[in-house]
Amino acid sequence: MNEVVAQLMQHRSVRSFDPSPIPEADLREIVAAGQMASTSSNVQAYSVVAVTDPALKRELAVLTGNQAYVETCPALLVWCADLNRLSRAAEAHIAPGEEAYADSAESFIVATVDASLAAQNAAVAAESMGYGICYIGGIRNRIEEVSSLLGIPSLAYPVFGMCVGLPDQPSGQRPRLPVEAVLHWNRYDAERGHGPVGEYDETMTRYLQARTEGRKSTPWTKIMAEWLTRPNRLHMMEYLNNRGFLKR
Amino acid sequence: MNEVVAQLMQHRSVRSFDPSPIPEADLREIVAAGQMASTSSNVQAYSVVAVTDPALKRELAVLTGNQAYVETCPALLVWCADLNRLSRAAEAHIAPGEEAYADSAESFIVATVDASLAAQNAAVAAESMGYGICYIGGIRNRIEEVSSLLGIPSLAYPVFGMCVGLPDQPSGQRPRLPVEAVLHWNRYDAERGHGPVGEYDETMTRYLQARTEGRKSTPWTKIMAEWLTRPNRLHMMEYLNNRGFLKR
Repeated sequence: MNEVVAQLMQHRSVRSFDPSPIPEADLREIVAAGQMASTSSNVQAYSVVAVTDPALKRELAVLTGNQAYVETCPALLVWCADLNRLSRAAEAHIAPGEEAYADSAESFIVATVDASLAAQNAAVAAESMGYGICYIGGIRNRIEEVSSLLGIPSLAYPVFGMCVGLPDQPSGQRPRLPVEAVLHWNRYDAERGHGPVGEYDETMTRYLQARTEGRKSTPWTKIMAEWLTRPNRLHMMEYLNNRGFLKR
Repeated sequence: MNEVVAQLMQHRSVRSFDPSPIPEADLREIVAAGQMASTSSNVQAYSVVAVTDPALKRELAVLTGNQAYVETCPALLVWCADLNRLSRAAEAHIAPGEEAYADSAESFIVATVDASLAAQNAAVAAESMGYGICYIGGIRNRIEEVSSLLGIPSLAYPVFGMCVGLPDQPSGQRPRLPVEAVLHWNRYDAERGHGPVGEYDETMTRYLQARTEGRKSTPWTKIMAEWLTRPNRLHMMEYLNNRGFLKR
């Protein structure tokens, strides 16, 4: 295993940070490395808002579900799928009345994937530089308010946040599904998940017990049932439609 | 700049491959590195179909728009957003008639982002091992047929393909937008894109001219106008609805 793969295999989410600011040059290097990820048809349909202002981080910590580390991390990168910049850039070349398709499911996928690939490259860069990161899906909890606060325009939306900072204590690594559960050969085999998933239930039960001194031991399949049956962020469709996304 | 960042900055899409097969152990290592990417609430909502069968690659090359390298690459990884595996795994813990929310826009985002983060980690791993990669968005051109061919179940969809193999000739690197165009500080500033985008139009014009011996010189903003006004993959919404996605 080479050093890059070894670094990827060492990934863990960091939720406790040294409060010292990150040099602006490092944040720019992290984002520039993110930009080198592949992008569909070179549309580069994403933007990043780097939040370093303490008052703003405090507000965002509340809006994302009172996650203290959103406030205490030195920088919160808010990764946005963004079809707004390219739409404005293209304006001069589009005839009045000509139809544009930023509102299609396809365009939504392109922008969401572009933002995600760039963000993950940035995460790898940050970790190589000694920083720790944590994705913040909670940015979608009160996404309307987050969007107003950060001035996100139409045809753009915050996909997730990412806390970045120097870790100030070691954090544990959560085991993943066995590779057999996710990797299929030449054809998706719905049956092959069963064995590995059962094995993973046991792995996760042991992991949770060890972390909580025996207080928690919910199997992964049960946690998934709880996740699936929770009416989570059901405002997203209306929010996205109002932003001009997913209309057809 | 450290070596990992240097590798990320060296990324280029590879479209011409040495045909020799990739050892299965390498493909497993690439996917396992992908799995270490962050995942929302540990749902791990993605699967990968590794297509190595020559006849299948040939069919997929046709279905993705006659991209020869889909056939000639030794392995095509088809990355699927997958809420099917976890839904089946959770079944035993869900009461009959209890409502589940795999069909929400939120769940669709979770699965699409999960697949993308894993894929980008895998891309970084593959490149560190000397392989080249190329994302294939064309997998969505005739996605219904691709899904049948690979046996993708409901509540799952192929987000993109990824050709993997040893590069057999050097390939050029496409310049990206200046970091100033994508990185905002504390608040999205719609005005700050203008200058950098104009600069990028010039960069891309020079890049295209150099690559095509002067035959092509379309500015990026015009290419974006063409992209926006092309009715691209408008079947996606209906396809996704039929798969059980994006119903609310």
